[in-house]
Amino acid sequence: MYLGRIVGRLWATMKNENLTGQRLLVVQPVTPELEDKGKCIVCTDWTGAGAGEVVYWSRAREASYAFFPEEVVTDATIVGIVDSLHVKRT
Amino acid sequence: MYLGRIVGRLWATMKNENLTGQRLLVVQPVTPELEDKGKCIVCTDWTGAGAGEVVYWSRAREASYAFFPEEVVTDATIVGIVDSLHVKRT
Amino acid sequence: MYLGRIVGRLWATMKNENLTGQRLLVVQPVTPELEDKGKCIVCTDWTGAGAGEVVYWSRAREASYAFFPEEVVTDATIVGIVDSLHVKRT
Amino acid sequence: MYLGRIVGRLWATMKNENLTGQRLLVVQPVTPELEDKGKCIVCTDWTGAGAGEVVYWSRAREASYAFFPEEVVTDATIVGIVDSLHVKRT
Amino acid sequence: MYLGRIVGRLWATMKNENLTGQRLLVVQPVTPELEDKGKCIVCTDWTGAGAGEVVYWSRAREASYAFFPEEVVTDATIVGIVDSLHVKRT
Repeated sequence: MYLGRIVGRLWATMKNENLTGQRLLVVQPVTPELEDKGKCIVCTDWTGAGAGEVVYWSRAREASYAFFPEEVVTDATIVGIVDSLHVKRT
Repeated sequence: MYLGRIVGRLWATMKNENLTGQRLLVVQPVTPELEDKGKCIVCTDWTGAGAGEVVYWSRAREASYAFFPEEVVTDATIVGIVDSLHVKRT
Repeated sequence: MYLGRIVGRLWATMKNENLTGQRLLVVQPVTPELEDKGKCIVCTDWTGAGAGEVVYWSRAREASYAFFPEEVVTDATIVGIVDSLHVKRT
Repeated sequence: MYLGRIVGRLWATMKNENLTGQRLLVVQPVTPELEDKGKCIVCTDWTGAGAGEVVYWSRAREASYAFFPEEVVTDATIVGIVDSLHVKRT
Repeated sequence: MYLGRIVGRLWATMKNENLTGQRLLVVQPVTPELEDKGKCIVCTDWTGAGAGEVVYWSRAREASYAFFPEEVVTDATIVGIVDSLHVKRT
């Protein structure tokens, strides 16, 4: 999974029917030190996370599977909100 | 999913039979601030989007699944057209 | 899918039995303006494309699926030859 | 699979139910010479590895499959701890 | 598939049971001109290739499928040894 911070949201009227009812959040990837790194991604959300929160998301088939048995055509889903993060580089 | 802008289209006579009848669009990835970033990709289209529109697309198995139950050999599909996008970096 | 130009071919005696009889082509990714960009990839070929031709290829499970019902252990397959390509950046 | 060193851990109360009970480790990718390279990733762990250990992890569907028949919504799993590593570049 | 040269090997006592008995090789990606490019990857091996040999490997589900019907939790497998390689850039 990847670390990121929620920085935005998007709206779309015309979209695949399997995405109906899904919130679409814009996530900025961050390092474990919480600095921005890399390009933003559009994620569906399993967690109810809000703007500015640090989350981790899953990709590919696993992104879709988070909603099982519901079928959602997504390749990136927020699957958890980070409470705390301990990093120690030696 | 990823944000992008439609910048072109391609035509191919010789192609896999599972791509017959599919429009093939050239998409330039963009940042949430809508600046070009990264290399272009060729997408099938579920939405009917036109040149210059901002869209988001899905990859891998999910790209193919958007057309279910039709079988399309694609690894990148436009699944929505962006109406509006709100981004706030803290 | 991704745009590329065929720049070479490789031969292998010792290879997975599910690749027997498959041509293996070396493809250089290109931009929509047909300039080289990124690292080459080895593709199986569904189209019969020849050296120098501009093609697009599919990745992952979809690469393998192009040969269905034949089982081919490939993660990159050329699925179409580009006849023409129209790009207009605004 | 990819080489990495465990540099941290994260905790999350709100997370997908299929991740309950899974340790979530922060892994820094390393070169075969064990130098840091690339962005960190959040992995589930099959091995019981501890901070500072060199491991290798698997991605995508295979990450999830390591826990079979248990269903875990993960796209990155540590599947082995490196005992020794011999590299010779010619 | 991707071109690479075998540059090392690793040993692991603690590893996922589905990797038992598999050789784990360290592969350096190379260009068609056989220059090193990009970060090393750890591959299972279907071919019996040795140190210094130029090979190509497959990723994701296809990596695992090379061992079918055996189940191996791998996302990168060497599927062929390169005998010869002809590249001509125009």
